[in-house]
Amino acid sequence: MITPKTAGEPGVTADARGFALRSPEGTAYRVDIDTDVLSPANPILADYFAGRRVLVFVGPTVDRLYGARLRAYLEARLARGSWSMHRIRSGERHKTLASVEEICATAKKHRLDRQGVMLAVGGGITADLVGFAAAMYARGIDYVKVNTTLVGQVDVGVGVKTGVNAYGSKNMLGAYHPAVGSLNDPGFLRSLPVREIRCGLGEIVKMAVIKDAALFGTLAAHPLLFQDTVSSRQREDYVLRTAMELMLVELCGNLRERSLARLVDFGHTFGPIIEVASGHRIAHGESVAIDMAISSHVARLLGILDVAECQRIVSLLCALGLPVFDPAICTLDLMRAALHSAWDRRGRRLHLVVPDRVGSAVFIDDLKDLPDDLLAAALDSLARDAVDRPMTGVAQ
Amino acid sequence: MITPKTAGEPGVTADARGFALRSPEGTAYRVDIDTDVLSPANPILADYFAGRRVLVFVGPTVDRLYGARLRAYLEARLARGSWSMHRIRSGERHKTLASVEEICATAKKHRLDRQGVMLAVGGGITADLVGFAAAMYARGIDYVKVNTTLVGQVDVGVGVKTGVNAYGSKNMLGAYHPAVGSLNDPGFLRSLPVREIRCGLGEIVKMAVIKDAALFGTLAAHPLLFQDTVSSRQREDYVLRTAMELMLVELCGNLRERSLARLVDFGHTFGPIIEVASGHRIAHGESVAIDMAISSHVARLLGILDVAECQRIVSLLCALGLPVFDPAICTLDLMRAALHSAWDRRGRRLHLVVPDRVGSAVFIDDLKDLPDDLLAAALDSLARDAVDRPMTGVAQ
Repeated sequence: MITPKTAGEPGVTADARGFALRSPEGTAYRVDIDTDVLSPANPILADYFAGRRVLVFVGPTVDRLYGARLRAYLEARLARGSWSMHRIRSGERHKTLASVEEICATAKKHRLDRQGVMLAVGGGITADLVGFAAAMYARGIDYVKVNTTLVGQVDVGVGVKTGVNAYGSKNMLGAYHPAVGSLNDPGFLRSLPVREIRCGLGEIVKMAVIKDAALFGTLAAHPLLFQDTVSSRQREDYVLRTAMELMLVELCGNLRERSLARLVDFGHTFGPIIEVASGHRIAHGESVAIDMAISSHVARLLGILDVAECQRIVSLLCALGLPVFDPAICTLDLMRAALHSAWDRRGRRLHLVVPDRVGSAVFIDDLKDLPDDLLAAALDSLARDAVDRPMTGVAQ
Repeated sequence: MITPKTAGEPGVTADARGFALRSPEGTAYRVDIDTDVLSPANPILADYFAGRRVLVFVGPTVDRLYGARLRAYLEARLARGSWSMHRIRSGERHKTLASVEEICATAKKHRLDRQGVMLAVGGGITADLVGFAAAMYARGIDYVKVNTTLVGQVDVGVGVKTGVNAYGSKNMLGAYHPAVGSLNDPGFLRSLPVREIRCGLGEIVKMAVIKDAALFGTLAAHPLLFQDTVSSRQREDYVLRTAMELMLVELCGNLRERSLARLVDFGHTFGPIIEVASGHRIAHGESVAIDMAISSHVARLLGILDVAECQRIVSLLCALGLPVFDPAICTLDLMRAALHSAWDRRGRRLHLVVPDRVGSAVFIDDLKDLPDDLLAAALDSLARDAVDRPMTGVAQ
């Protein structure tokens, strides 16, 4: 799947530690996989900091679950006085410029200089906040991510986007600022609530639907991946690595989104407005699942996607315990508004991603291709489905 | 002075419109000079906006002096409804993240999308604020600068730094974000208060001392440049273009300050703390002048710079009406603190720039080379000088 390349050439290279990405404009970074990254015997994390001042930021949950182990690791591996650890607020409603400013204020208070490093240990929100702070502090310093959630490991942790919500829009302000290192330890996933696992699986389904029918097949055959203590570690490893790799390869040529036609935006056209309109009752990964279901039905109604393939996609989402519809939110008016908002955001082209079969996707660029009656019919199919399948609602 | 280069090769190229810079890592932008840029007959500014939405930001002074002409230009040149103009706060104390967020909020309110452009018309503070807002809005959009002050035209407008003050430090938060266009119209300089002209001359002296003895000679022979209606436009044009070119060439290889040893930091080691400690009573360009005087005396005491050359530099600053000392601020303790702060900021190296003759400079990297008695002697020389030359104090 990875195109072989020589050193220095743009592309993604797999090696023993993980993946190295080099974009055509010269940006280079690594995303690595390792177990026991917080074991004092493991140097991989500490190696990023050799002799540099480190400010570590964690959210409340990571602090509660891993704070003591993380402190013990840093005490064992780093020089006394060279690091300090700080708790930041978490949750989508704290993903604000004010939180980023607090992180910068803490860094300044602790005299972090341009040679210093920030370390984010947590999920996507912690990485987005610390990454944006690192992007603006002294006009940009290094940061490292340890991704503790499944969404973090296959999505946020793999890319270079950082940012905060503002003015009622998700990720309205931010920066493209790659972490110098990004570490995925599957061990963290064991402590995740099932809902967060499902959100991560939603992002993995996204990659499978647009790029990889074999990955789709594995997810369909094993819907309890990452949730079941008896599930095969080897299978989980395959799913994790494949999702990371697919994402890296897809991002590589377009890291800074110069092109706004991105296949990885599958699930991210109706999704953002669903998440915001629900007051974040519907989580990000859940909004992605609902968007994928709507987009698949749109593709079916346009004759782009077979009825059976559409059903396979929606059934997999349901089997994974993800919602595919929400009657209070998925109104024609709001979905229409989502299309207009995407059209604005993507430079007056729609770039709606829809599958043409499992493992492949295309763009719908013109708003005129999506008249109200078609959109209404897509929503209606899901509404009827939801009546037959009451399990598909969002957990309260 | 400019090394000839072929297209696409890194370097600075002069052409009929101004200068084109291409950095080794591929960043490219232009800085142009033209007269009557607000004349409806002149397309140069409007050409940046072809068909795109434009949000124009001006400070109160520019609005008062040029607001009507700017509006008339935009009305004549741009499509109705494609632009709007907004007044922002000015002054060093408003150079804050809150001001940047206000600019972003205005942009969002006016539905600026990723294809939109921000235009900053003003001095360095306006450019820094709008540039930082453009850097973070939707993770980075285009912006254009029209530089109306002399400092803006030879310094801020030529570089890629944007940012705001925070936590008691100048430019603590920011981004390297080149404007797609930067326009210098010498006509704007006619409306500048003499104090602002002098601040700009301070930055030009900086470039002359570190790089260009001929430019130094011109400044010394014509200290009333840009202030005198009978002064030669041709000579002013030479000074402006030369200062811009010297700055661009000096920045080109190190746009993002990967190296913290920068000759253009001459005047910017003691300067920032002088400016902040005075509560901005001492303006930026004035603090640069004081720093250059101190640094020159330090170089003299270290045997790096001839007594006569040191005197030439200090005399030129005085002849231009710039301060070279401030007894309330230039204390040994504060200047020592400035050195430590620079040492921190520059990655635990001092990188103090001092001239070794007019037109050339070197770095002092080790704090140990600047013992207290040497620093005290440098300050003392200037204090004694100030008694003989009472004109050198800062205007109140």
